[in-house]
Parts: sequence; structure tokens; C-alpha cells
Amino acid sequence: MAKKSRKPAAAGRSTGSAVKLSPRDEKTLGDLVGLADRIVEDASKNRDPYLDIPARALSNVRYNKSKGFIEMGSNKNRRQLFNLSQAKSYMQTVLVAKGCKELLEQQKSLSIRGLYYMLKHKIDGTKEETFDSQDECDPVIEDLEVTLSSLREELRVYASNRGGLVGPITLIDDGDEIDCSRMGSGGYSIPSIVEPETIVFKKNEADFILHVEKDTVWRRFNEDKFWRKHNCILTHGGGQPSRGARRMLHRLHNELKLPIYCLLDNDPWGYYIYSVIKQGSINLAYESARMAIPNAKFLGLRSSDYVNCELNSSVQITLNDQDRKRANQIKSYPWFASKKAWQKEIDLMLSNGFKLEVESLISKDISYVTETYTPERLAAEDWLD
Amino acid sequence: MAKKSRKPAAAGRSTGSAVKLSPRDEKTLGDLVGLADRIVEDASKNRDPYLDIPARALSNVRYNKSKGFIEMGSNKNRRQLFNLSQAKSYMQTVLVAKGCKELLEQQKSLSIRGLYYMLKHKIDGTKEETFDSQDECDPVIEDLEVTLSSLREELRVYASNRGGLVGPITLIDDGDEIDCSRMGSGGYSIPSIVEPETIVFKKNEADFILHVEKDTVWRRFNEDKFWRKHNCILTHGGGQPSRGARRMLHRLHNELKLPIYCLLDNDPWGYYIYSVIKQGSINLAYESARMAIPNAKFLGLRSSDYVNCELNSSVQITLNDQDRKRANQIKSYPWFASKKAWQKEIDLMLSNGFKLEVESLISKDISYVTETYTPERLAAEDWLD
Repeated sequence: MAKKSRKPAAAGRSTGSAVKLSPRDEKTLGDLVGLADRIVEDASKNRDPYLDIPARALSNVRYNKSKGFIEMGSNKNRRQLFNLSQAKSYMQTVLVAKGCKELLEQQKSLSIRGLYYMLKHKIDGTKEETFDSQDECDPVIEDLEVTLSSLREELRVYASNRGGLVGPITLIDDGDEIDCSRMGSGGYSIPSIVEPETIVFKKNEADFILHVEKDTVWRRFNEDKFWRKHNCILTHGGGQPSRGARRMLHRLHNELKLPIYCLLDNDPWGYYIYSVIKQGSINLAYESARMAIPNAKFLGLRSSDYVNCELNSSVQITLNDQDRKRANQIKSYPWFASKKAWQKEIDLMLSNGFKLEVESLISKDISYVTETYTPERLAAEDWLD
Repeated sequence: MAKKSRKPAAAGRSTGSAVKLSPRDEKTLGDLVGLADRIVEDASKNRDPYLDIPARALSNVRYNKSKGFIEMGSNKNRRQLFNLSQAKSYMQTVLVAKGCKELLEQQKSLSIRGLYYMLKHKIDGTKEETFDSQDECDPVIEDLEVTLSSLREELRVYASNRGGLVGPITLIDDGDEIDCSRMGSGGYSIPSIVEPETIVFKKNEADFILHVEKDTVWRRFNEDKFWRKHNCILTHGGGQPSRGARRMLHRLHNELKLPIYCLLDNDPWGYYIYSVIKQGSINLAYESARMAIPNAKFLGLRSSDYVNCELNSSVQITLNDQDRKRANQIKSYPWFASKKAWQKEIDLMLSNGFKLEVESLISKDISYVTETYTPERLAAEDWLD
């Protein structure tokens, strides 16, 4: 009975809102209300209220070889109200949950900065602020994500849009039908929230996805209509891909069964971007199952390309100490450590003593990367796994 | 006759390209070829070759009160081949001109980084690189722009896309018809190059433009369908607007006669963004005529909003020394110095001792900014000029 009487509140009807929630929003809202209910239950039984929050630390992260991605372990940290050092973060966690509940009930969304402003206030009768800065609020959002096993996007909190897409795919975005093959020079801008509630894939004719690192490279491919000639979806992440871009790639890959090939710089940063796309990131390990793409392939640039493509020495960018350090760290990631080809790849960059950007191929010809390099690599199935 | 015989080359036919150039591309290419012709002419007459490059310096910039924007003066710097300290930059300027000529002839475009890679090489028989870094190349592109009175965009060189747009306007972008009222949650991504060759306005039903600073604020307005209720075009520049975003605003304003209202943060950075949109920027003063919008209005945030909107003290962000310094600089810009309302506005921020972000209005209600603040300001015509 208790469960039944809770449902109307969970659906936001108690606040007078007549908005119809999706089953997924109902579930998220139910989880938020459940979290509050447990606190009330503890209090009414004279127990000290607490939250058990899965530990987002390197020590609680492991590489799951069979799944092929980084996942979180089962360690949890208890956050208690009646503990001086935890009371503030306990209160902040409950406050963020309250904010997300309001967003769900009103079917609105806010930026992480917006949520911070929504919740920031002086606690009555004190000089204490709920949050002193946004830096205090952002990690609490992540805490709530792991605690509820909800994505931030499900909690209706977003970051800036970053990333673009073009290709023979039609999707429904917020009710609008978008033909991504007719989006002009700028392409379709990948939103921060791309969950199935907002974005539905309607019709796809593409055979694969080519993901490039930067929008300026993406533009070269778009201008040369690479995606038309090779019947693919062309995406970029504006550097390190945002959560929105990663989630979009994940959905395209899994729902439409499209292989993904990554064209990134030949440098530790490019390797790392690939690693995050493929295996997930350490600090967002709890999201791997919904973000990581273990089958993604690394098309290039490769350390051997300097010789193979007969590049001139002007395009070399000398490695600095930081580059070498990062390269060695990445080399020892378990998913790279177990692969000979990757060890060879990183070793060759280190012995080359320089890194290469994708743009360096322009030194051969404006369209070398779109007309020669990428088609040849794809035809030869010449990539790293 | 000399002119006539040059034309075929200018149209790129001499390179075997059959691409048909637009009249504007023909003109730009003609200017580039003319620049080279003058060098050849000097050489053949045994004169030392030189380029006269308009000075892009504060000392050569002035505020044109009647036009209402910053413009360049007539000072020029002579750049000579036979001058040890100028030979390299002379060579670089000619090299960039050569690169842009190739782009025009091939009807391709490149990022500023791409152009750098295209032109970077070791000079035969020396250890000297044409460019040591992109920092050496970018200003030369600007030198070429001023010398030829061509926009970088006309030289087919672009930067990253930044900025978004949504509203009841249909445009043609690179041959694709884009209905900007049906672009989903992410909106139309404003390209780096929005010249009439790529972007044509087909049909407009909007009455005005609301320009906001950040995409996260833009998203709030888009989610609340502000543009539909108020029949406007909603744009953002992703912070300081890119050249593409400024040029798009300029074209919308001038070609479609749409007033522009800016909703920016109440801080020196927000004031500066407004100043750039309205009067142009000092280091791109040569572009003011094609970028500045002297009629743009500053809708907010205003220093008086803290009291008028009854905001809570938690949203205050204390001014630091840098903020005060910038505020005083901006206050003394001639176009602000002559306006009492602006002097009062900046003085009040300084005496408040704090700045306010647009997001601070969320502390009142998620949709206060879209449902109360902005509609009230527009209805009352309450803005700064």
C-alpha cells in the first residue's frame, strides 16, 4: 500500500502538474522519491539518516575484460547527516535530488550551472551557503547519478552542446524530423541530452560511422562530401567528445549496428580520446555500459604514417616531457597493455620523438585525407583495435 | 590588354580547373592575382618589391560617431622583400596569398590550422621553416584581409563553428533548405562562413532577434519555446561570438531589417561582448562595416536587476581587481563615455561590488528569465542603447 500511495507523488501530480511523464521519467522520479522516503523512514524510526554512495575513485574502478570496458566496483561510501564532516555534503546531495525532482515534474531541463543557481541559497538563520561554488555542486550531481544508477541526462541536467553529425540518417529530435543529409555546411549539432525520450532514429541508410576529433577536420570531410561517397555518418566531438556525443555514438552503434572508425591525432591526447570512446573513462566508469563502445576501431593517425605517407619534416611536433609521461601512462592501461599492436604503436611514437595532427595530411594535398588516406585505410581494413 | 589577359588566370582556368567561380570569388581571386602582378611588375622594373599593409594597431583605430562603429585609419606599414627584418613576413604574406588562391581555384576551404599545415615547409637548401608555429600564420591571414579588403571568409579560411540559431526563418545553406523552426533541441549550428555564396535567406517570419551569451541560456529559451511565443530568432554565440555568429547577426539585421536585443551577463565580459557586437572590435576594426551592428540594444542583465528582481544575495559574484580594471576601461570607451545611461550602469555595478550572470535569474524560477524578465523588458522597451 505504501508503494501505491507514493506513485501519484512520484508522477508529480501532487504539485498540481498535469504533465504526462514517460515511463523512464516515472522510474527516475520514483527513484528520487524512494531516496527521500528512506530518509523519512530512518528518521521516523529514530535511526541516523545516511546515503550509501558508490565510490567514484580509481581504487573502485576495474577493467572488465569480457565486457571490454571500465566499470565501477562495489565499494560505497556512507554519507551521514549526523556527522560534522559529512553533514554539508549530505545536505547538498538531498538538495540536488530535490532540484532534479522539480525538473522532472515540470519536464524542464537545466544546465549544470543553472542547477547550481537554482539550489544555491543562504541557509535560514545562518551565514552558510548551500554551495560556495559550482565546483561543489557538479560532483554531487555525479554522486546522485551513481547512487540512483541514473544518467545525468535522465536527471534532466545538461552541459553545453558539443559535437556535430552529418550523413544519410533521419532522426526525430524533440518532435522535429531532421534529415541529417540536408543540414548545410554546419551539420546537425549533437545535443547534450540524446536519450530516446528526445532523440529517436527514424531511418538510417549509412553503413558505418567515421568519427573525427575536431570540427575543422570534420568540415574538410563534409565539404568533400565524403559521407555521400562512402555512405557513412560523419561525426566529430569538438576534441574530447562530450557525454552527449559519446552517448550518441553508443546509441548509433548499438541500435543501428553501425561500426565506428575513429580518426584522431597521433598523440597521447588522440590515444586517450580513443580509449574513452572505446573503454569508457575512469571518472565516469559508472556510465560505461551506456557510453563505451568496445568495438570502436582506431583508423589513425598512426605513428608509421610519417614514413608511409611520406610526410615532410615540417609537420612534426616534438614530444615534450608531459607527452612522454602521458604516453607511458596510456601504454600501461590494461586494455592497451594486453595488445601488441598498441604497444608497438605507442613505442613508435615515442621513438619517433614527435606527434602528428590529422591536419598534417593537408601538407600533401588539401583533400588527401578524404580522398586517399581514409578510403585506403578503410579498404585495407587497416586499423587498430 | 594586360587586364584582359589576366582574367582567365584569375578565374582559375589556367590551372585546368573547370570550376565556375561566383562573381565575388572572381573578384577576390582577381585581387590576389593583382597583388602578385604588382610584385612581378616591380621586379621587372628593377624596383624593390613591397606590400603596403594597413596598420592593425590601436593607434590606427578610431570610433566613427556618424557610422556608429570602430573603423581603421589610413596608416599603412610597408613590408619589403629586401629588408632583413621584413623579408620573412613579406614571404609569409605572399605564401598565404598563394594558399588562398589555390583554395579559391579549387573551391575548397580550410581551417586556419589547415592553411598553416598547407603552407608550412622547409625552404629549399635551408633549415628555415616558412612558419615556426600557427601563431606566425594567423596574423598574416589578417594582414592579407586588410590589404585586399577581403574577409577571411572570402579567402575561404575558417575557424571552428560556434553559435546556434532557432526561429521562424528558412535559409539555404550549401544548397540544403534549412527550416530553423524545425531543428530539434540543438538548433541550427551557425557555420564559420556565412557569406551569401553559402547562406541565402529564403523566407523570414520573425520580428526581431534575441541574442543570448551562452548556449546553456539559449537552451532554456529554446526549451520554453520563447521564440515561438514571441516570434523571434533566438541566437547564441557560445560566449564571445565568433566571426561567423557576428556576421550572421549583421546579415539578419541588415538584410531582413530585424532589431537585435542582447541578453548578456552583468559583468565586464558581458559589456564587452555587447560592445563588440555593436561597435566592432579593436583588432578586427577593418571588418566593422560588415560585422558591427550600431543599432543593437542591451536588454540586460542590468546592475539594477539585483534590487528590481529581488534576487537573493547568494547569486552575487564579488568583483575582483581585474573586473574593476576592465569595467573602468570599458566605461571610458568613447561610445560608452558619451552615454549617461551606460556610465550609470557601469558605476552601479562597481558600487554594487558584484556581478550577476543571466543564470542567476533561475534562483527565482526555472523559467523566470523566459516568462517574466525578458517579456517585461521587451514590452517596456527597457534597454540600453
